[in-house]
Amino acid sequence: MIDGDMKRKMEIARNKVIDTIREHGGTTLLSTGITGDDARMAKAAVDGGARMLEPNHPAVALARGWKGVTSMHQAEEIRHEISVSEMARVTAGVRRVVGPDIYITVGISGGFTEVVPKLLSTEDFRLMSEAGADGLHIHKSDLSDLQEIVAMAHRYGLLVDAYIGHSQDLHPFGIPADTADEVAQVAQAMEKIGVDMIGLMTGMSYEGVAAGEIPEVIRERLKALVETVSVPTLAEGGINPQNFKAFADTGVNILVVGTTLDHLAYNSVKEAVKIFIP
Amino acid sequence: MIDGDMKRKMEIARNKVIDTIREHGGTTLLSTGITGDDARMAKAAVDGGARMLEPNHPAVALARGWKGVTSMHQAEEIRHEISVSEMARVTAGVRRVVGPDIYITVGISGGFTEVVPKLLSTEDFRLMSEAGADGLHIHKSDLSDLQEIVAMAHRYGLLVDAYIGHSQDLHPFGIPADTADEVAQVAQAMEKIGVDMIGLMTGMSYEGVAAGEIPEVIRERLKALVETVSVPTLAEGGINPQNFKAFADTGVNILVVGTTLDHLAYNSVKEAVKIFIP
Repeated sequence: MIDGDMKRKMEIARNKVIDTIREHGGTTLLSTGITGDDARMAKAAVDGGARMLEPNHPAVALARGWKGVTSMHQAEEIRHEISVSEMARVTAGVRRVVGPDIYITVGISGGFTEVVPKLLSTEDFRLMSEAGADGLHIHKSDLSDLQEIVAMAHRYGLLVDAYIGHSQDLHPFGIPADTADEVAQVAQAMEKIGVDMIGLMTGMSYEGVAAGEIPEVIRERLKALVETVSVPTLAEGGINPQNFKAFADTGVNILVVGTTLDHLAYNSVKEAVKIFIP
Repeated sequence: MIDGDMKRKMEIARNKVIDTIREHGGTTLLSTGITGDDARMAKAAVDGGARMLEPNHPAVALARGWKGVTSMHQAEEIRHEISVSEMARVTAGVRRVVGPDIYITVGISGGFTEVVPKLLSTEDFRLMSEAGADGLHIHKSDLSDLQEIVAMAHRYGLLVDAYIGHSQDLHPFGIPADTADEVAQVAQAMEKIGVDMIGLMTGMSYEGVAAGEIPEVIRERLKALVETVSVPTLAEGGINPQNFKAFADTGVNILVVGTTLDHLAYNSVKEAVKIFIP
């Protein structure tokens, strides 16, 4: 049903990504955290040059004070309670403010390996597509679950960015692949089932590394990903102003940055408030 | 009905305000804008020392990208479309994160003189009361409208902070009173009908003044307010880190600050994003 229109939608979305990567010299930013879901901060990110945004359900759990959570670690435990229709409203609002040329990929309940497994219905995909999402930000940890989601997403004109994780990760944010060789194998399998952009979880989620460098093991795994697939690649977890150049040097196309931006906004507000209070 | 419980709720709320003003040396901060409605930024404000927060419907219109508005001036035109139940959800979320000791006053559709007049129902007051609001942030421009709201708010255990404006204001944010004498008269009338905290709109809304000083006419009007009433007083509009001491010197108890905090968060995010993009 209207596969032609859906293919056209995906083609437009794909071109937004490819053009952005090229214009930004090979590596661009996927701006998330508070810049993904609050239209005021999405505008700030876009005014700063971001062309890709990612609203997601754990960040919205934080924004809404859902169950009183105040950290991403806590939010991951209850994120599945944020409804897809809430994420559709968030997406539509951000879209209204940033306009049609910005790529928006969205994390929704059921698109991640949730603490409480959540089935996605066709209605969920339709909602997100019509809300103005270009794609879905998917963190599944099982390849056949991922395959089902990719098929359904494409039917509704949505691209999919999905991730490779590690068997020892605190949260299951990707298909596990521990060695560089395994990363290459899993990346090939993901490309084969039609994943439109393939990312690597650094395992440094929510906490930066000390130096400004990245661990050799992450560099090797990232290079294995970048050298294996022809679709755009991403890196997510612990990327900050100090270490992002080391990430970009691996040839990865998209750096997913959220916690760093949240911390900067948090600190600027906290310090400003202190001025007004004796 | 259960007037005793409601009086007790108001007494607790009143004490939060009085204690905060005293502990902060006579003048404290009512933190609004993004710090009023986004639970992440409310936490930042509270961690910075704020003890009073104000979520409001125009700021939520900005947060949700409602109708694509990107400035407070635009938001004032469509803020009445943000439902009271949305503001109740926002309030409950902020309350969950900041805990019971923070004073929360909320701007809701119908609590301001809206472009499209909106009737408030008893259900609206009940919703806000049960969502965890201590009070309502009221910007009515007619004294008898204000009187009706005060009566209903008190019935549901909600305090009211309401404002004095100027006949030439761009947006009607208060009961008009142009000279210092008129300010004193209107303030007396507002205290008489039971307004729990009385504020003065500086007329500098959304734009700071150049110097770090405040115009003499505002100083005189503020002093007239402060010297006339025995309830806590507020000043709202254009207060920033440069001029807040000049405001505090008038003896006003509460400085309402929003746009300045929004700008700081916006700039910190925008500048951070620039780092990641070549």
